[in-house]
Amino acid sequence: MSTLLWQKAGVEVDPRIQAFLAGEDVLLDREFFAHDIRASLAHAQGLARIGVIDAAALAGIERELDALARAFADGDFVLDDRHEDGHSAIEHWLTQRLGEAGRRIHTGRSRNDQVLVATRLWLKDRLAGLAGLCRDIAAVLLDGARAGAGVPMPGYTHLQRAVPSTVGHWCAGYAEAFIDDGVRALATRDWLDANPLGTAAGYGVNLPLDRAHTTAALGFARMQVNPAYAQLSRGKFELAALEALGSATLDLRRLAWDLSLFTTAEFAFVHLPAQYTTGSSIMPNKRNPDVVELMRASHAAVAAARTETEQLLSLPSGYQRDLQLGKGALVHGFRHGLGALALLPGLLAGLRWDEARLCAAIEPAMHATDLAIELAAAGLPFRDAYRQVADGAGDLAARTPQASIAARISPGACGDLRLDELQARLASLAAALPAGADP
Amino acid sequence: MSTLLWQKAGVEVDPRIQAFLAGEDVLLDREFFAHDIRASLAHAQGLARIGVIDAAALAGIERELDALARAFADGDFVLDDRHEDGHSAIEHWLTQRLGEAGRRIHTGRSRNDQVLVATRLWLKDRLAGLAGLCRDIAAVLLDGARAGAGVPMPGYTHLQRAVPSTVGHWCAGYAEAFIDDGVRALATRDWLDANPLGTAAGYGVNLPLDRAHTTAALGFARMQVNPAYAQLSRGKFELAALEALGSATLDLRRLAWDLSLFTTAEFAFVHLPAQYTTGSSIMPNKRNPDVVELMRASHAAVAAARTETEQLLSLPSGYQRDLQLGKGALVHGFRHGLGALALLPGLLAGLRWDEARLCAAIEPAMHATDLAIELAAAGLPFRDAYRQVADGAGDLAARTPQASIAARISPGACGDLRLDELQARLASLAAALPAGADP
Amino acid sequence: MSTLLWQKAGVEVDPRIQAFLAGEDVLLDREFFAHDIRASLAHAQGLARIGVIDAAALAGIERELDALARAFADGDFVLDDRHEDGHSAIEHWLTQRLGEAGRRIHTGRSRNDQVLVATRLWLKDRLAGLAGLCRDIAAVLLDGARAGAGVPMPGYTHLQRAVPSTVGHWCAGYAEAFIDDGVRALATRDWLDANPLGTAAGYGVNLPLDRAHTTAALGFARMQVNPAYAQLSRGKFELAALEALGSATLDLRRLAWDLSLFTTAEFAFVHLPAQYTTGSSIMPNKRNPDVVELMRASHAAVAAARTETEQLLSLPSGYQRDLQLGKGALVHGFRHGLGALALLPGLLAGLRWDEARLCAAIEPAMHATDLAIELAAAGLPFRDAYRQVADGAGDLAARTPQASIAARISPGACGDLRLDELQARLASLAAALPAGADP
Amino acid sequence: MSTLLWQKAGVEVDPRIQAFLAGEDVLLDREFFAHDIRASLAHAQGLARIGVIDAAALAGIERELDALARAFADGDFVLDDRHEDGHSAIEHWLTQRLGEAGRRIHTGRSRNDQVLVATRLWLKDRLAGLAGLCRDIAAVLLDGARAGAGVPMPGYTHLQRAVPSTVGHWCAGYAEAFIDDGVRALATRDWLDANPLGTAAGYGVNLPLDRAHTTAALGFARMQVNPAYAQLSRGKFELAALEALGSATLDLRRLAWDLSLFTTAEFAFVHLPAQYTTGSSIMPNKRNPDVVELMRASHAAVAAARTETEQLLSLPSGYQRDLQLGKGALVHGFRHGLGALALLPGLLAGLRWDEARLCAAIEPAMHATDLAIELAAAGLPFRDAYRQVADGAGDLAARTPQASIAARISPGACGDLRLDELQARLASLAAALPAGADP
Repeated sequence: MSTLLWQKAGVEVDPRIQAFLAGEDVLLDREFFAHDIRASLAHAQGLARIGVIDAAALAGIERELDALARAFADGDFVLDDRHEDGHSAIEHWLTQRLGEAGRRIHTGRSRNDQVLVATRLWLKDRLAGLAGLCRDIAAVLLDGARAGAGVPMPGYTHLQRAVPSTVGHWCAGYAEAFIDDGVRALATRDWLDANPLGTAAGYGVNLPLDRAHTTAALGFARMQVNPAYAQLSRGKFELAALEALGSATLDLRRLAWDLSLFTTAEFAFVHLPAQYTTGSSIMPNKRNPDVVELMRASHAAVAAARTETEQLLSLPSGYQRDLQLGKGALVHGFRHGLGALALLPGLLAGLRWDEARLCAAIEPAMHATDLAIELAAAGLPFRDAYRQVADGAGDLAARTPQASIAARISPGACGDLRLDELQARLASLAAALPAGADP
Repeated sequence: MSTLLWQKAGVEVDPRIQAFLAGEDVLLDREFFAHDIRASLAHAQGLARIGVIDAAALAGIERELDALARAFADGDFVLDDRHEDGHSAIEHWLTQRLGEAGRRIHTGRSRNDQVLVATRLWLKDRLAGLAGLCRDIAAVLLDGARAGAGVPMPGYTHLQRAVPSTVGHWCAGYAEAFIDDGVRALATRDWLDANPLGTAAGYGVNLPLDRAHTTAALGFARMQVNPAYAQLSRGKFELAALEALGSATLDLRRLAWDLSLFTTAEFAFVHLPAQYTTGSSIMPNKRNPDVVELMRASHAAVAAARTETEQLLSLPSGYQRDLQLGKGALVHGFRHGLGALALLPGLLAGLRWDEARLCAAIEPAMHATDLAIELAAAGLPFRDAYRQVADGAGDLAARTPQASIAARISPGACGDLRLDELQARLASLAAALPAGADP
Repeated sequence: MSTLLWQKAGVEVDPRIQAFLAGEDVLLDREFFAHDIRASLAHAQGLARIGVIDAAALAGIERELDALARAFADGDFVLDDRHEDGHSAIEHWLTQRLGEAGRRIHTGRSRNDQVLVATRLWLKDRLAGLAGLCRDIAAVLLDGARAGAGVPMPGYTHLQRAVPSTVGHWCAGYAEAFIDDGVRALATRDWLDANPLGTAAGYGVNLPLDRAHTTAALGFARMQVNPAYAQLSRGKFELAALEALGSATLDLRRLAWDLSLFTTAEFAFVHLPAQYTTGSSIMPNKRNPDVVELMRASHAAVAAARTETEQLLSLPSGYQRDLQLGKGALVHGFRHGLGALALLPGLLAGLRWDEARLCAAIEPAMHATDLAIELAAAGLPFRDAYRQVADGAGDLAARTPQASIAARISPGACGDLRLDELQARLASLAAALPAGADP
Repeated sequence: MSTLLWQKAGVEVDPRIQAFLAGEDVLLDREFFAHDIRASLAHAQGLARIGVIDAAALAGIERELDALARAFADGDFVLDDRHEDGHSAIEHWLTQRLGEAGRRIHTGRSRNDQVLVATRLWLKDRLAGLAGLCRDIAAVLLDGARAGAGVPMPGYTHLQRAVPSTVGHWCAGYAEAFIDDGVRALATRDWLDANPLGTAAGYGVNLPLDRAHTTAALGFARMQVNPAYAQLSRGKFELAALEALGSATLDLRRLAWDLSLFTTAEFAFVHLPAQYTTGSSIMPNKRNPDVVELMRASHAAVAAARTETEQLLSLPSGYQRDLQLGKGALVHGFRHGLGALALLPGLLAGLRWDEARLCAAIEPAMHATDLAIELAAAGLPFRDAYRQVADGAGDLAARTPQASIAARISPGACGDLRLDELQARLASLAAALPAGADP
């Protein structure tokens, strides 16, 4: 391990304590390392612009940071527990290669704003990726809505058969859900798109740092003005990002629940692509929808990350080491959440609906509501119509799912799905995606 | 209790079961009753526009809903457990006064979209109210920032004295926090500003409902298109609103933590207005900052509401009764959260900072960072400067807080607070507030 | 409102602040009022035993506390917002009736240990009640296991049909679950069965309080020794109780999930008693399992109560007002949790299983595992047997559910349910129940 | 990767899906591998006892499992992603070395009961370790209580100075807390000490497995009878263990909060051992209590693990793949929780209290309660005494902390700490510790 810069002489180092302090920090820093390098570059440029380092030093730093970024991307540089953390690794690399210039890079910044800015850039990337996945999912679902617009399917409330519906209606419902999730991901990204670099340990520094430059160079929409707030936003912004992610994984949880039911032998409405299923170690007859189940479970990881972060944030203002724990939670939540969402477009595209089973599941009693409303439209007070139908009026067995579906013309319902409106919202989401939203 | 419309003949009613099913539902519906009436009016207008009810029936319904709204507001109509829920109460009121016309009002809608639309309107109001409170809080804090810009205060990290700072810096940090919270409240309001009325039980109806009319009449920005999604959004939108609220209550938690510390005898940096403190039942000498402590606690209620809602949402699509429980959670979270935030402007405006104590808490060692950066700016590599200062270089005792503060000129720091930028963001938040954001 | 004892003269009272401080505290205190009276009596006896009050004063206090307890139980005394809280109400009642003796009752105690002891007694009652409900539920389930031991039922993993099982096996599984939950409820009750009365505000008092007397008089197993710990245990013990409750409501959640599935038209394995179902406001054809769904939802309220309490407990030691919020959470969690569990015995006793549907759901492929194990028992390595069966060996269609069930003789399986062992554990739970465990 | 036994022919394997299914499972299995081997051995013995494998096969299996256990302990066998999971690795090892006998080991069991039994053994070990740590912590604290019994210290409520107390009182309070936590850890261990091996995939098997043998051989207190319950207990028992852990980490959180406050410059009551503090990357003057802060944070990881597990458990009965996610949560929670607790004895033993600062923090007004109670003991009604003292009666400045402490004789208070009672409870905890409770 490189020497700890802040180590006091004469204090015996206890390896158990060091291990506790380090945790998995340096491994987690792999996630943020590229962003840290990028922000270090902007910081160095800013220092040059106010004359703290000269052009030659900047050129060296730029060259060596670029080399480090490539070495890391190529796997030639491995960030591991030989380094205290990612920040130290960068400084160590520069100092070894550049000597004095490397020992200047930390002028006017603290590990506190360094980790803030790297995390902020990472969050922006992840939220863009989330929005991109939501777009992909919604696009597959809108395709499914078009294809399934005429395919009958029972509509349920309380898991009880209620009224006829369609596969298209089901698909369009989730499409609208994921469009909203994508919109929220981008709104959250905009909300936290503020540059914390240049706030040091939460109190700024006695240098006229060129924060306007670093803000522009790193692509932030604005500067996060107050250094105390930069610290207060640690965890707060992570929570907002996890909440945006959770919006999508909660929808995924419900969609996976549907698929879990629909693939039981009892429902048997849909077949999953074979590669999304697995077998049993003891029962030769089984094909299990494990992927769907792990998708359903993935929100739990996002919720756990939220809990871990939120529980930390019962603190006075100012940086406190507790906040370090939020880093692992953040990575855990996004890894599971985005990992599950990423498999969804392929899974959805491969669904095979069993039209015969779907139709067979629509029973005559499910036409009761249609009839009651017809009677009401024809002049009977609805409460009287409801009672007549409940008491057995009408020949429900003579009705067909197809006719029921065609007549369901309230806007958005299966007789008038309004897919154009959803497509337009999807297009506007897609248009708003920043670079990096594509995997 | 009015007769349950859906009751089957011959089924013995068990009062324990009825009580379990009802829970506190009808009392909670008081929160949503005015919105339910408003939405019922729009629904009736929509029915008239497609010819399901005639002009005379509509006129009667409009008159009686208006009368009910006034009776409820005036306390002449009390919603309590004589009614099954708020929805039944409205229908009962109309049927008693209008007869047949009242029995027509439920045509083409379900309690499912009825509760959705009332809750949606309520959420919009609450989020506007949240944004308004955030604006008020930020305004008081910006005043405090201006007044305290020259008042020294120790800056802490790890709760250890770090560098000199100012009361103005502290105030400006929280001001920026609450501006962000207000912005998020409005963004969340925009995100969920979609009309679910006309989606019935999640599958629409066989009537060409005029959803464009109800969307406009109720002031929604857009129609929530798909009926299945309207159901899927139950809980999802409530969560988003609670998360926006939680952003503010988490900032409140940290601010209250600061005040809790700063009002200890050991810190003694600030005095609370007397009416915000209480005494002890056993210790005659005590004045306790109970309000600050309950403010700190209020986020727990918001977090609990989130938990309760999120745990419910592990369900297949389609309405399920589980979701009813989310109503109480929502009311609980907003009542505590907004209640605590509402007291903050008055508390903040009444703070009296103790300048002598604040100055006395700034020790010479806190100037070490300034010196290290000065040496770095003068040409020494920062790592060498850091080491020299750690080893005792420089006469730190000769330095003053005032000089340190004045020299802290990185943008946003206490030497350059950039209050104009924060004021501009606050103005733009204030300009975006809808009607109803003022208490 | 009675005068606040701790009110400072000259401080203007702000009703909004008072309302915020009070919250719903006094209404919540109705839950704890009887326990508070009981503990007040023990405290007065203790004071008499050390000579702080005389026999006459004690006699008056005993008489009037007894009268208050009866008046409260009979509804003649209503605890509402005319009182600051339950504690004040008791003191006010005594002072009005006894004069000076009433003003002595608070000697040597604080509201802090007063609320602790009342809550502790309440927790003990609730945990006993929880254990009693678990016993009742397990008893009904063991009856069901005996009745259903020969009724075939598909066994599922991944919600996919796996192997034949029985209704008895299903019942016995949940019976064992609720026995464990009952055992845990009692173990938790024992764990927190310690008397906090006499610890005052967390530091004891300068009186030789007779804590041994109050411990015995109130039926505590032991004294909670350290006053600082009495304060530290606030919230901690509540959490443990909610966690014990959550163990049962999580099992209820899974059982309700089963019933929710089993009552779909697609499974149709079981019929609920009619009074546990409800109808729809729009669909005349529906009977919905609302009770089952609200049972499934009830854990969310327990989880919310946990969250609310746990979030409060990020505090230094010593009483802080934040902790007040935990009272409402506790009541909320137990009300919903116990309320849902209380309906379960009746619901379970009324289930009607559809044997024909259950049998029809057992397909030949579900005998594959039996065959593979038979081959393995006959000498084939299991991995080879598994492969042969997966490849189609054997005539699975010739097998019957009954034969499969009878052959499933590993201990505890449907061929050897070991109901005697479960019955013995239930008996030992029942024997350990304290008085008060019966509703 | 070894071939997946359950893989269907002709299904194209998608590496992204495989990676998603695998997650970090095999790495997590390192935690449980030794337990899995141990349970595999007991299972093989059981098979031999019912004649499914012969003595020679058993001897081979015993020899090779023993070799594997040693190779794993020595680092000669590395469990990594060359294996599907730990279970497959064991079977692969045996099959490679023993051929046919290895292919017999899985007879009569499923990965489902295999993971259950390994996790159960692991939980028992962790809970024993938790209890052992609580004992160690309480022992250090009782030493501290004895040493600090005469050292005055302000007692706080609401973080406001309340009454004189002592360092001994503070230590004894936490000692009692951790004794309770240790007792709870053992009670939880007893509660879940039931053998799930032999329940297969949740429905048992058609073999007379010798579950009594495996129960005894693995040291379980009893058999978990019903196979369906074995599956239902997955997650449920993990939650109970995490909740027992959380009881201790919540106490740690409050203790760490105290130390965080007490080590501020403003309080300055205590000094931490130097090796438990760190420096700053920018501020040469800082020594930060990072270890204390990470201790305070550690409960967040436990809470996150709870959340993750609890959110998964909204499922019908029967194994579902969602439950796999709980494994990582469990390891995460225990690693952080036990890791933080393990450092506490050393930290506590090294605390240096600053008696001068502690005494100086006790102000005359803190004697007010003593005086009020003295007046009450002398005959004045307490309410009158309270009022007199609040109005300035008595010469509080003449009183000393020492006298106040000595007079605080209510049982457990600083004048009568009852350390013998606590020591006796600690001794009984220590006596109940199973082997393995010592690190």
